[in-house]
Amino acid sequence: MELPLLTRLLEGQEQLRRALAQVLALDYLGALLGSLALPLLLLPWLGLLPTAALLALVPLLCSGALCWAFPGLRRWRWPVAAALPLAGVAALLVAPLGDRVEDGLYDDPVIGRLQTRHQRIVLTRRRDDLRVYLDGNLQFSSVDEYRYHEALVHPAMALHGRPRRVLLLGAGDGLALREILRWPDLQRVDLVELDPAMLRLARRHPLLRRLNGASLDDPRVHVHVGDALALVPGLPGRYDVIIADFPDPATPALARLYSLGFYGRLLGRLAPGGLVVTQASTPFFTPRVLASIQATFEALGLDTRPYSVTVPSFGPWGFVLAHRPTATLAAGDLPFQARWLDRAQLRHLFDLPRDLRPGPGEPVEPNRLVLPVLVDYQRQSRWRSD
Amino acid sequence: MELPLLTRLLEGQEQLRRALAQVLALDYLGALLGSLALPLLLLPWLGLLPTAALLALVPLLCSGALCWAFPGLRRWRWPVAAALPLAGVAALLVAPLGDRVEDGLYDDPVIGRLQTRHQRIVLTRRRDDLRVYLDGNLQFSSVDEYRYHEALVHPAMALHGRPRRVLLLGAGDGLALREILRWPDLQRVDLVELDPAMLRLARRHPLLRRLNGASLDDPRVHVHVGDALALVPGLPGRYDVIIADFPDPATPALARLYSLGFYGRLLGRLAPGGLVVTQASTPFFTPRVLASIQATFEALGLDTRPYSVTVPSFGPWGFVLAHRPTATLAAGDLPFQARWLDRAQLRHLFDLPRDLRPGPGEPVEPNRLVLPVLVDYQRQSRWRSD
Repeated sequence: MELPLLTRLLEGQEQLRRALAQVLALDYLGALLGSLALPLLLLPWLGLLPTAALLALVPLLCSGALCWAFPGLRRWRWPVAAALPLAGVAALLVAPLGDRVEDGLYDDPVIGRLQTRHQRIVLTRRRDDLRVYLDGNLQFSSVDEYRYHEALVHPAMALHGRPRRVLLLGAGDGLALREILRWPDLQRVDLVELDPAMLRLARRHPLLRRLNGASLDDPRVHVHVGDALALVPGLPGRYDVIIADFPDPATPALARLYSLGFYGRLLGRLAPGGLVVTQASTPFFTPRVLASIQATFEALGLDTRPYSVTVPSFGPWGFVLAHRPTATLAAGDLPFQARWLDRAQLRHLFDLPRDLRPGPGEPVEPNRLVLPVLVDYQRQSRWRSD
Repeated sequence: MELPLLTRLLEGQEQLRRALAQVLALDYLGALLGSLALPLLLLPWLGLLPTAALLALVPLLCSGALCWAFPGLRRWRWPVAAALPLAGVAALLVAPLGDRVEDGLYDDPVIGRLQTRHQRIVLTRRRDDLRVYLDGNLQFSSVDEYRYHEALVHPAMALHGRPRRVLLLGAGDGLALREILRWPDLQRVDLVELDPAMLRLARRHPLLRRLNGASLDDPRVHVHVGDALALVPGLPGRYDVIIADFPDPATPALARLYSLGFYGRLLGRLAPGGLVVTQASTPFFTPRVLASIQATFEALGLDTRPYSVTVPSFGPWGFVLAHRPTATLAAGDLPFQARWLDRAQLRHLFDLPRDLRPGPGEPVEPNRLVLPVLVDYQRQSRWRSD
């Protein structure tokens, strides 16, 4: 609005017009740099409070530059120069303060924290209970993670019967990998993980390494770092079982990894008789997420078998298994003893209780790259959302 | 220690000895009255903070009495007389303050509170979620109570096939009763509940009454108020199904209701071919509670079938069903549509997962009236107890 008015006013005054154009151009350039730097550099690398402290220094630095540049502002030079180190010290003090604030957000003592390009990773521990949080969301508790990871990995492996090549997406903590490596005929696992810092942590942190059985160092494991959507088409060969363990589809970026487009790419990597399985959020609270993932696989012509298990630290958890209608499935048994899943549990795992399905008044659509309905389904919890 | 010393010192001084004897006698009498009044009258009827306020007035009243009785203390009469009404007003102000403190203990807005002789009942509500707490422990959430009550009632009813007479112990909220009354052949339910205030609340509170479907007013229901251990032997006739829904056995008083002695009395009320079922706490956290209840039934010569269901607001929950080895059980189906339990869930309900059983190093004993091992088992949670 102000630009056409100014242009009209300044039509005759060449010098002023140029100066103004420079100011406006610099203004836009600064806004561009700032809006790129904040999400891509500052927040990922520094975290929230140190970024705020750093940005608070910028106006002070500008004030200093002005005082030195313009003689009329000379008497402000030394007060500004004195304020700068004070503000710098305050900025340095803010970082540990941020840790204290963060500690208060967790029930248990925080034993480690890591700001990566992609997420904030926090480890807590109370007695035998090691927990990992990603961006504040519980990723797992060491007390019951076995229920989740056995449910994620073994039903598809057991229905395949003799899986040799497995593709695992997400799950850089190495826990699903630990379960996959228990299968005797397994020859190769390709793991695709977005965050190299999570892989380093899973390899090097002594508690995590003990929990995942150093699975990431197994010679059968091949790690690919990057976005699954981009990497999957270039992976070598085809897979007997594909396991997707992404975070819940609460944002459009995450919902891509549960879309028709992505599942179509996965099918291109599936061996004849192969199975795909994905975690599907918590169907007691968000039954439409599981139902929509199921509808997405079915829109590709696959047969689906949804199932659930209770992970006490999460509540009832859902999964969707899918395969081509031509696949012949094995009877399903485990060639080893797991902690939760056995032949009896496997036999009736796929009888999903009625109350984990959407009600008749809840429409369910497949999830598409261009129309990520899952984001809405994930946010609309049936229970206690405010 | 001080008594023999005093006796020795005062052997010659008759008058002093008498006065001292009177003081000591009154001291013991007061301690006796106080230790009886506090748990039996004051705390049950007034609650914690009003009791504290009332007791704070006692020393002030005693000071007043002393000032009037002894002329040497005369100048303190009026200050004490002035302090009394102030303290009285403060005591009156404390009661609503206690409500405010209590409100802070619950996640959701408190919509009702009731101090009965037996317990403190608090109702909270957020949107569709009505919750009832007994002494601070969640009794149920209206969002998932159907899972608990269907699991408590229907498996035993379905295995009996055509239950006509049912005995329900505890469960004065009318929710288990609502499920029992769905069975078409049912002729009579005897309900034993300790707390008449809970029954009044379940009958009269509009939200509770809507939730239990006014089940307590059904003509087939006969209510008996009192302690189950004392009342059970005098109940009329025998029952096809006996359902025990007591609080977890966390105290010796509650553990009585899960004991060999109590279960023996229940058997006396069981019709030929009848079944007994009891809730059995949360076997993921306290697997020995369920296992010990099972061992207690088996010590009486019964066959047992433990099972579990996930109630999201509680976590995985356990039950133990027991019957005489001679009983012939029906195939098990429901003559109506429930919200969670159906033929498929019933078919595999009794395949208890491995991780809900105690480990090999955890000894399990039957629970006896004189040796209530359940109290220890209930308190020793496998997970996150501090």
